[in-house]
Order: sequence, then structure tokens, then C-alpha cells
Amino acid sequence: MTDISILGEFGLIRRLTKDLPQFNAGTLKGVGDDCAILGTDPKLRMLVTTDMLMEGIHFDLTYTPLEHLGYKAAMVNLSDIYAMNGTPRQLLVSIAVSRRFSVEHLEQLYAGLRRACKKHRVDIVGGDTTSSLTGLAISITCIGEAEEQDIARRDGACDTDLICVSGNLGAAYMGLQIMEREKAVFNSRPASDAEAAQPDFSGREYLIERILKPEARRDIIEALRETGIRPTSMIDISDGLSSEILHICHSSNTGCRLYEERIPLDYQTAAAAEEFNLNVTTCALNGGEDYELLFTVPLTDHEKVCALEDVSVIGHITHPEKGCALIARDGQEFELKAQGWNPLQ
Amino acid sequence: MTDISILGEFGLIRRLTKDLPQFNAGTLKGVGDDCAILGTDPKLRMLVTTDMLMEGIHFDLTYTPLEHLGYKAAMVNLSDIYAMNGTPRQLLVSIAVSRRFSVEHLEQLYAGLRRACKKHRVDIVGGDTTSSLTGLAISITCIGEAEEQDIARRDGACDTDLICVSGNLGAAYMGLQIMEREKAVFNSRPASDAEAAQPDFSGREYLIERILKPEARRDIIEALRETGIRPTSMIDISDGLSSEILHICHSSNTGCRLYEERIPLDYQTAAAAEEFNLNVTTCALNGGEDYELLFTVPLTDHEKVCALEDVSVIGHITHPEKGCALIARDGQEFELKAQGWNPLQ
Repeated sequence: MTDISILGEFGLIRRLTKDLPQFNAGTLKGVGDDCAILGTDPKLRMLVTTDMLMEGIHFDLTYTPLEHLGYKAAMVNLSDIYAMNGTPRQLLVSIAVSRRFSVEHLEQLYAGLRRACKKHRVDIVGGDTTSSLTGLAISITCIGEAEEQDIARRDGACDTDLICVSGNLGAAYMGLQIMEREKAVFNSRPASDAEAAQPDFSGREYLIERILKPEARRDIIEALRETGIRPTSMIDISDGLSSEILHICHSSNTGCRLYEERIPLDYQTAAAAEEFNLNVTTCALNGGEDYELLFTVPLTDHEKVCALEDVSVIGHITHPEKGCALIARDGQEFELKAQGWNPLQ
Repeated sequence: MTDISILGEFGLIRRLTKDLPQFNAGTLKGVGDDCAILGTDPKLRMLVTTDMLMEGIHFDLTYTPLEHLGYKAAMVNLSDIYAMNGTPRQLLVSIAVSRRFSVEHLEQLYAGLRRACKKHRVDIVGGDTTSSLTGLAISITCIGEAEEQDIARRDGACDTDLICVSGNLGAAYMGLQIMEREKAVFNSRPASDAEAAQPDFSGREYLIERILKPEARRDIIEALRETGIRPTSMIDISDGLSSEILHICHSSNTGCRLYEERIPLDYQTAAAAEEFNLNVTTCALNGGEDYELLFTVPLTDHEKVCALEDVSVIGHITHPEKGCALIARDGQEFELKAQGWNPLQ
């Protein structure tokens, strides 16, 4: 018997989905990107993605309000549609709950789902509601659409393309560290001190918001369209910059150079990393859960992309034999490795 | 705080999905049928359905081989597409597993999924693989297609339509009773007797197969097409005949009369019901998990539908004020109630 942790998530998926047969002409892209691509209409393609969130693995209800959880569960899926340069349209929501949940609990969860869907003009069209012996399980499927020529896959990056990222990185990871620390403090308080032990997040609000309430970057997709930039490849950052750029490079059969000094960081992220005695670049590379967009554009779009708000050019694509490396501030090269969050280890 | 069991599954869904806004013209039918109906192409519609299966609630691994579980998880979803008179095309598979599962366990589960998909020519196009703190959770989304004029919803039944059902009913429920009894026998054996305690299913193989390895009725959909019968409404029987015909009648705003003597039963079902001292009609009405198709056809299709193999006419649709009733063998009328399997009670 082989332990799943030996293969890890991506190794396991490769093994389980190896040599999958294909019966339908409408299946244009199966396993291996942010979404599957379906459709017989050459103009309008359908994008489908699904994500499962398990209590105790993906979220901790001791510090995650159910409304935020619903909001995040939707956002994580919308982000996958945007990562293909598509528009999300419909959502299916399956929930399994144990006896400790009431109708009002589920209404809070749904309030978050509804809020996310309203913001992104997405329809909740179905799902499943059932019970669970233990924790809460949420499975969401999102359906979107895109015109064929607009779709940004993982495998389209070319030599000399610029590597770009939206927003800033590592903040969600630092938010998680702060939540975990406050939880430990809370759990170790004397019983008599229950009232007094209020967590102190002052000056860290942004980090907390990044982990509890991420925003799918529709604004970036819209800005790219308005500017006439068509990304050659794109992915959303759920497992960390390092893991995601490696997905793009492996799928596109290229190498890359990222520049440490170009990686966008928020001031709060840097301050918290110092407080926790962590290297902030490591947090940005491997932290995950940022749900920012990582994409490549042709070198000729350099000026256009530099003019975009909240987008940073952090490196470039190379020939595959150059490998994938980070250039540190002192000029040293480090090989990039996927050390992002792995739920199966 | 309101206990979920007070509302039940359908009451909870109604409450959570009440007044859902709709933003997209491509959302043709949301919550409330076997599938959502999507699409902007008036000729070809997209059907989407999703189901979540939780260990200890929907399946018991002490007597469910993982390969059968994978097969059944796919079939349950394919059945929902057929229940709209559609053709399933793609499947997304999300799995959460705890540490007691090995790579080989998941390969068994996938072998069943692949077998079901091969049989029905469906492509596995994506999913999610993650971990769980306790049991196994499976969430499957199936995408299918149908031409607009072929789609059979729940709300199309009309007065005088014939009510038809495929195959026979109650067998899966009796199979479950037998499995549960053998499990109890096994658990109460003396420890020294571990080898000897082999379950005895002789003469009950069909019932066991019905609960462990249901088959989605593509053959019935194909037969209806070949014969030129277009069902006015259709649903698959997952929660029991009673619950499903009530869904059709409520959605269509009609009543119905079912005839007890017409309900198709297998000999093994009747024999097992007697052995367990259960009323076999009650098993057929409320048992669930049969995954047969329940549909209505215009009275003018009477001859055509009677000529179909493995289809029984079990009653007819009436005006709504006549209510929904079963006519027993002795001519007495009983009001139909949804007492099928409810995972939230």
C-alpha cells in the first residue's frame, strides 16, 4: 500500500487521471488547468472548475465566521474562471453538515455565498445539501464562459514573455500565522479569563482580511481587456508563487527568471514576517491562498502592462534548458521549488 | 437556533435558495429539477447536476467495495442527466480522504468511476483531490446536453397523462436491509470466529447488486427516442416512488392516481420483504436508491409505451384538486406522502 503523501496532491492526480480516455468532441481540455474547457460552439467556450473545502483542513471554524467562509468558497472558484480569462456565470453549491449546525448557521454561510455571487453577477443554480458524521464539507462547481481566442491556458508562455502578478503576495499566509497564534493564546488562557482573552489584530487587519475574505481579481481581467493585453498564459495563486510559476513553465515547456526585489509585498506582510522571524520572500513564494493572478504577456506589451494599476512585472520566461530560478537581491540564483501548501502531506 | 431536521432536506433547500437573484440570460432553470439548464444556444442546452456522498451517511465501507462506490457515485449523477432526457458528456470528481486511505484505495475508486464513464461514454475532465480529517467524501458534477424540445422537466405533466416507471422498485432498499443485517451478524460474532463469518447472500444477489451497483437507465432514454415518445415530465427515483411522484405533481400542479397492483416488483424483493416482515409496497414507495426513471407520457402514447420493454404504466395524472393517492389492491385510496430517505433527519 502506497501512502498518499509520497505522491503529494499533483502526483496523485497525475496517477489517478493517467491515460483517461476521451469520448466527446466537446471536451476540449480536461484535467490539467484551472478549468476544463468544453463546447461545440467555436465562438463561445464553457469553462468548468470545482473545489472542495473540508473543515479542519481548509478552514478552522474557531476563527472563521461562516459568512466569510461562504464568501471565500465562492471566490476561490470564481478565481479559477478568471485565471482562464473567462467570465463566471453559474455556481453549484454542495454542503454536508453535522448535527452541531443549525438552519441559521447555513443561512450565514449562504449569505456569504450570495454576497460573492451578487458582486460578480453569478447565479446559484443548484447543488446538494446533506449531512456529515463529523465536520462541514463544502464543494463548489463554477461554470463560466470565454471566447476561444481569449482563453488563457497554462501552456501558452513563450521565451522572453514578461511574468506579471497582480496585487501583493504572502499576506494571506501571514494572516493565517496571526490567526493560529491568537487561537493558541486563546486555548491556553485560564478558564476564569474567558472574557478578557480578546484577540488583538490591530495593525494587522489587512492580513486577516486577506486570509478570511480574499477577492477574485475580476478587475485585473477587465483592465487587461480594456488595455488590449491578451495574456499568453495565466493561473491563479492558490498554492504559492513558486508552485504556480512552475505549473506554467512545465505546461509551456519553458524556464523562467523571477527577481526577488520585484515581488510585490505589503508593508504589513513584511512587518509580520519580521515579527514571526520568517523570511518574507519565502512567505511570498510558498505561502499560498493569495488568489492573485499570475500571467505572462509578450515583451511587446511591456509598456502597456507597466501602465496597469496593481500589476507588477516580476520576471521573464526563458528557454527550458535555463531552468526555473529566483534571482535574489544579491544576484545569486536559486532554483525554484514547489513547496506550497499541500493538503495531502 | 432551528434544528435542520425540522425543515428536512427539501425545506432547507427552499429556505436557503429563496429569492435567489438571477443575473445571466444563460441561466434557464436554476434550483428545483434534476439538473440546472444553461445555455445561450436555443438548439443545444447544457444540463448540470451535482451530488455529494459522505462516508457513514451515503455509504458504509464495511460492505461497499471502493470500485463499486466509484461506479455508483458516477451512476447517480448520470441518472440525473438522463432524468432530463439528456446525454451526459463530462464528469468532475472531487475526493477528500483521510490518512487511512492509500493510493491503491483511490485507484480502486477511480477504476469504478472510469468503468461507469466508459460505459456511458463520458469524459472525466477535472476535479479536486484533498484530505479529510475523518472519512471519505466524494462530490461529483456531471455535465450533459439536450436539445431544447427534448428536455423533460418535472413541471410538464398534464391531466390524463400516463405515469410510467422503468425496471422494478424496492430492490435496492431490500439489498440495503440484507447488507445491514449481515453487518450486524458479523459485528456480533465471537472474535475467534472471524474466518467463519462469511455473509450468505445466495438467492439475494440481485438485491445486493441493486444497492451496490445501480445502473443509470440510458437504455430507456434511447428506447423512448427510438419509439418517438417525448415524456411530458421525468425524474429519477433516488428517494422513493412516493417522494418523486409528489415532486412531479407539485411542480406540474396536478394530482395523480397510482395503482398498487401495477407497481413493478422483482421476485427477490417480494421474498426478502416477507422475510423481513415488511410490506413490499411500502418498500417500493419509500425505499429509494433504485435510480429508475419515473415519467409521464400523453394518453395518446398508450400503445407505444405499453410496447416498451422494462417499462410499466402504474397510474395517471389528475386535476390537482383530486390530490395524490395510491389505489390499493382492495380499491381503497391512500394519500401519498413523501417518507423517502432523508439524510437530514
